[in-house]
Amino acid sequence: MIIVLRKDASEAQVAAVERRVYESGGQSRRVTGDERTLLVVLGEPRLSREEMLPLPGVLDALRVSKPYKLASIEARPRSPVTVGRTTFGAAAIACIAGPCAVENRRMFLDTAARLASLGVTMIRGGAYKPRSSPYAFQGLGEAGLEILAEARERHGLAVVTEVMAPGKVALVARHADVLQIGARNMQNYDLLKACAEVQRPVLLKRGPAATLDEWLMSAEYLLAGGNNQVLLCERGIRTFETSTRNPLDLNALPALRRLTHLPVLVDPSHGTGARDFVTPMALAAVAAGADGLLVEVHPDPEQALSDGAQSLTFDQFERLLRSVRAVAAVVGRELFLAAPPQPEALQPAPARRLGARSPARTAYSGAPGAGGGE
Amino acid sequence: MIIVLRKDASEAQVAAVERRVYESGGQSRRVTGDERTLLVVLGEPRLSREEMLPLPGVLDALRVSKPYKLASIEARPRSPVTVGRTTFGAAAIACIAGPCAVENRRMFLDTAARLASLGVTMIRGGAYKPRSSPYAFQGLGEAGLEILAEARERHGLAVVTEVMAPGKVALVARHADVLQIGARNMQNYDLLKACAEVQRPVLLKRGPAATLDEWLMSAEYLLAGGNNQVLLCERGIRTFETSTRNPLDLNALPALRRLTHLPVLVDPSHGTGARDFVTPMALAAVAAGADGLLVEVHPDPEQALSDGAQSLTFDQFERLLRSVRAVAAVVGRELFLAAPPQPEALQPAPARRLGARSPARTAYSGAPGAGGGE
Amino acid sequence: MIIVLRKDASEAQVAAVERRVYESGGQSRRVTGDERTLLVVLGEPRLSREEMLPLPGVLDALRVSKPYKLASIEARPRSPVTVGRTTFGAAAIACIAGPCAVENRRMFLDTAARLASLGVTMIRGGAYKPRSSPYAFQGLGEAGLEILAEARERHGLAVVTEVMAPGKVALVARHADVLQIGARNMQNYDLLKACAEVQRPVLLKRGPAATLDEWLMSAEYLLAGGNNQVLLCERGIRTFETSTRNPLDLNALPALRRLTHLPVLVDPSHGTGARDFVTPMALAAVAAGADGLLVEVHPDPEQALSDGAQSLTFDQFERLLRSVRAVAAVVGRELFLAAPPQPEALQPAPARRLGARSPARTAYSGAPGAGGGE
Amino acid sequence: MIIVLRKDASEAQVAAVERRVYESGGQSRRVTGDERTLLVVLGEPRLSREEMLPLPGVLDALRVSKPYKLASIEARPRSPVTVGRTTFGAAAIACIAGPCAVENRRMFLDTAARLASLGVTMIRGGAYKPRSSPYAFQGLGEAGLEILAEARERHGLAVVTEVMAPGKVALVARHADVLQIGARNMQNYDLLKACAEVQRPVLLKRGPAATLDEWLMSAEYLLAGGNNQVLLCERGIRTFETSTRNPLDLNALPALRRLTHLPVLVDPSHGTGARDFVTPMALAAVAAGADGLLVEVHPDPEQALSDGAQSLTFDQFERLLRSVRAVAAVVGRELFLAAPPQPEALQPAPARRLGARSPARTAYSGAPGAGGGE
Repeated sequence: MIIVLRKDASEAQVAAVERRVYESGGQSRRVTGDERTLLVVLGEPRLSREEMLPLPGVLDALRVSKPYKLASIEARPRSPVTVGRTTFGAAAIACIAGPCAVENRRMFLDTAARLASLGVTMIRGGAYKPRSSPYAFQGLGEAGLEILAEARERHGLAVVTEVMAPGKVALVARHADVLQIGARNMQNYDLLKACAEVQRPVLLKRGPAATLDEWLMSAEYLLAGGNNQVLLCERGIRTFETSTRNPLDLNALPALRRLTHLPVLVDPSHGTGARDFVTPMALAAVAAGADGLLVEVHPDPEQALSDGAQSLTFDQFERLLRSVRAVAAVVGRELFLAAPPQPEALQPAPARRLGARSPARTAYSGAPGAGGGE
Repeated sequence: MIIVLRKDASEAQVAAVERRVYESGGQSRRVTGDERTLLVVLGEPRLSREEMLPLPGVLDALRVSKPYKLASIEARPRSPVTVGRTTFGAAAIACIAGPCAVENRRMFLDTAARLASLGVTMIRGGAYKPRSSPYAFQGLGEAGLEILAEARERHGLAVVTEVMAPGKVALVARHADVLQIGARNMQNYDLLKACAEVQRPVLLKRGPAATLDEWLMSAEYLLAGGNNQVLLCERGIRTFETSTRNPLDLNALPALRRLTHLPVLVDPSHGTGARDFVTPMALAAVAAGADGLLVEVHPDPEQALSDGAQSLTFDQFERLLRSVRAVAAVVGRELFLAAPPQPEALQPAPARRLGARSPARTAYSGAPGAGGGE
Repeated sequence: MIIVLRKDASEAQVAAVERRVYESGGQSRRVTGDERTLLVVLGEPRLSREEMLPLPGVLDALRVSKPYKLASIEARPRSPVTVGRTTFGAAAIACIAGPCAVENRRMFLDTAARLASLGVTMIRGGAYKPRSSPYAFQGLGEAGLEILAEARERHGLAVVTEVMAPGKVALVARHADVLQIGARNMQNYDLLKACAEVQRPVLLKRGPAATLDEWLMSAEYLLAGGNNQVLLCERGIRTFETSTRNPLDLNALPALRRLTHLPVLVDPSHGTGARDFVTPMALAAVAAGADGLLVEVHPDPEQALSDGAQSLTFDQFERLLRSVRAVAAVVGRELFLAAPPQPEALQPAPARRLGARSPARTAYSGAPGAGGGE
Repeated sequence: MIIVLRKDASEAQVAAVERRVYESGGQSRRVTGDERTLLVVLGEPRLSREEMLPLPGVLDALRVSKPYKLASIEARPRSPVTVGRTTFGAAAIACIAGPCAVENRRMFLDTAARLASLGVTMIRGGAYKPRSSPYAFQGLGEAGLEILAEARERHGLAVVTEVMAPGKVALVARHADVLQIGARNMQNYDLLKACAEVQRPVLLKRGPAATLDEWLMSAEYLLAGGNNQVLLCERGIRTFETSTRNPLDLNALPALRRLTHLPVLVDPSHGTGARDFVTPMALAAVAAGADGLLVEVHPDPEQALSDGAQSLTFDQFERLLRSVRAVAAVVGRELFLAAPPQPEALQPAPARRLGARSPARTAYSGAPGAGGGE
């Protein structure tokens, strides 16, 4: 059960509700989101919604049967996430593009300019790169972050970049609009907790051997930590089949739609590891219900420092966008592309613990049948 | 290497070519197809195409690096398979539909009538059902085959049905237009050999834990046995993920396009095991390049004797066809649907070992750069 | 539920019991074993053991919660299988050895002589070989069966060999003491049904991607068909890991002990595919509770026609036996090795549908608390 | 290639060697271990051992073909790791035991006393617990570390405990003798780098979907960072099979013996997740060549805060030790158990960056055929 508290609930009222849960054999955990406070009830106490609604300070009480509570579809129907001009999880779908790694300033700014000219509103690029080998290129680090920030200022693109260590979250959040948690860190719980602390949307990639339940439990770490701007990103699973690197599990798209309200993106580049596969799998992802795509694009894939084999050229990417738009229309969605933006449109908002929100970030209010307004 | 022999090659000429292969350290296996004879060369002898072309009786020589020879894309670019009015592996895509099992005459004929009225040209339905439990419904057997044949005669639909034992191949081939080899029998080599003996197209489902190479090696059993009318059908693989029964591996579609000339269909019903997933995954399959679909439809899914949970109603199926048509257009394909047919249009052709062929069944002729006409 | 009928139950009594099941909302399936008749009750009728015991003709009624009924540990605690001098599933463990394939008479008889001199009582060797490639050596067929039979007569070894097609079961059963169903045929249900018809023990290998439940359901096909001499054989599962061919799943040994009464053997040769791994994994299998081993031995592994890389030499095998004996002692088992046998000791018994049994083949009698003797 | 430098090599000599590598088309990375400095050569330059040996400052040059260099068996035959009185990777095997989590002081000290009385020399227990659910018990944190340290002082046990975040490495290293990196953090590269910085042995668990190559690449992060006290620990892999939580991959034991010199332990408790399976799988692990075991023991498993279902009681554990000792003898190993220790015997050594080493920590010296002493 999730108990939604009124905004004006007093500390004494909240404590009384917690006591009631405790006396019924359960435990409650207070989650302080940006708009309201929730109590996540654990341990299956004997409590009904009808009992909770009359309690002072209680706005609503939602039954949730899954081990992930806040991430469950039982908690809310949809939870769109807005980043600058782009919203994921509503009617439109959007495409984040860019190179695997920020390799140098020139290459990255050229990419940004070209993407912006196509109407793309979000760019990706790694400043910190998780590499299997300690001897491989590990990213430019802080210098890469500064290049990312410059691309945003010059071209009005929102920036997505990976963070690998809890101690770097604050630094990365100062430069990026979306924090990416990579597949290998999906169950790095200290990192999840650190990312929950900052008010930045988090793009949480699926671990290559993670079940949907495990993935949603990792999302729950973010939500329970007070950050409800979570984007899921499928990028391929580990199977016996080796002809593709990590076969994309597109079945996860309809499956997640039943389980969670979180937007789901697909990364066809890392999943397949091969350029020829990116466009077919991107179209398939949109056909199967993806809320967005994360596509690797590189000005000169043959020269890329990492993952060049899976990067599209600009021309290939432009054709991909056209096909994506057409497939999206078949499934009742629209591809969001901006008119070439005004650089000042997207001022990097300061990272902060709690504060004002964009209107798209609806909270746990107005659930059907809620027991009263406030 | 595959050596393509001229139609008029004499036995002495063929024997001389075989001797030449043997003396070069290789072995050859004669494959007598319906239009011409091939020699599959094994064992990596020191032989070049240039050496073979001048030999009497030799039309062409194709280098093939894979362990599957006749199934390799190096052997030919595409190999469309025509069943009645429907061709797989060319410009159009087509949809085979029907219930999991032939449950009774009325239900199956009703289904056939409804499908024909939608323009569907091929119906599926199991008379022999492989079931995990010995106590589950195992199909109507021969009585089911007769119902299938009646549906074809009444509604002009080509019939696809599973065969499970070598001893039943001749019987099933008398009643069906396409022999289906189920996922669990993909490496049942005696069954593959028996199906190679009859002149019926074979729909070969992928084993749930089969790599693409293993799948193509099983197809090679059919091709090496003289049957080159082979349809592959992806139906989901076994992974650690249990939220879908056998997640469809759509990555296999672009991957197979690089490896083989055989048409590839997708069965979104068995892979996902859940009705809600069928349409999104069918659209994704088409977006990713499928040559056809195999979809379970049932007049009353709740009452189905097997796999009802994954069967679409007629209305759902009709909507699926509309969406498939639209996605197909995006990827430059067209959904093949017939005008409601004349029953006499599709006379069940007698099963036979070798004989006249429909023009769509092109053989290994006219490979680019072939050394001469005939 | 399994209802055990008295040997002297009349047809009228049995029919009355079946009617009682039907009227309670269930269905029953009659299984005629060699010693008594059972009714397997399906469909969860409202029936208690107490209601069934007083019915005329009923000896006992066992509650079984699993979908596999006769294979469940709830049906009986253990079901030893005796082949000639060897019993699996009791105190001793035993080792079946021999080459992958019967390659020629000399090589096989030499192997048999050497194994017999070591006290081994059972030899394996394939006359029909399932091979991924249609071009690979497929076994000597019937000629191989005759070599197997000769080895038995000369050296008193019981013979284990694979059967791949239902139409070959009678032939193979005439020459072999144990019918092996290979991993790729674990769900070849027509083959399972055919093997259930003959009175020969069946060694049922686990499919490389089969769950324990699926494996036991395949065993149920044999048991439900009236053959209760079933040996399970773990030989490796398919995973993402490619450093070993099919990693042996030794966890299956304690897991199966909870689920089934059937003896479980382990084949460390096919699972690992590498000679160096065979001895460590064989010892591990015995430590984990295996009832027997199936080990590939070849007089000259480098020259083997198939799977030479995983075959032990005689000397390696002799050392393996010594270590197996020592590990077996630690877990309270003993390695069964015979004094060099008298050839006439093991006369090949004629294959037959129903007949006298060796005393080791206990049936479903005398379950604890059975409602009465007979 | 790995170039082993003489201890007295001057900076100018080292720089000259590096230049030589660079001019040959390669790159080199300097690894400063505790005893000597190595150059790891990357990029396959055209360099032979014979060319390098005469260069001033070069002691030896080892060809390594694998992507992991320092972890490869080509670098050295074995690398025993000594922790207090216990050495892993030499003749003896040893058993680390203890509860999943440090739950409270009394329970942990009782466990320590009991283990010490059995001759066990190392205790495990989590102060920081990675849990799938944010709502589950996450460990006592620093308070738990202090309890661990107290157990060491009172009972002379070396302490193994998990560290989850780079920022906690120094703290944990002050209290623990061995840093454990959990399965979910196997590819948490920032954590690996931080653990490489402290002079504590690291127990690196295999990720549940990690190939052996990936695991060894993670070990390479530790070795390349200057920490060559690395213990590998197999704890089960993720497969399609769900009857055991993560089936132990014992095949990895002989496979790793071919690939690496690092000691390999096995954790049968987390792999199987079920108490009944722990002893059979522990014995199997020793039979297959494990260098040690990591076993969960709990004074009262039914009351454990985490993973009680897989914990042994003391009595079960004592029986396990007896059986392990017997199986070890079969494979030529001995179970190391101490006489009940003197508490002062094991003073917690201060964590430090570089310093004196215990004699058991042999470095890359005296490789066979080394070009000269020093």
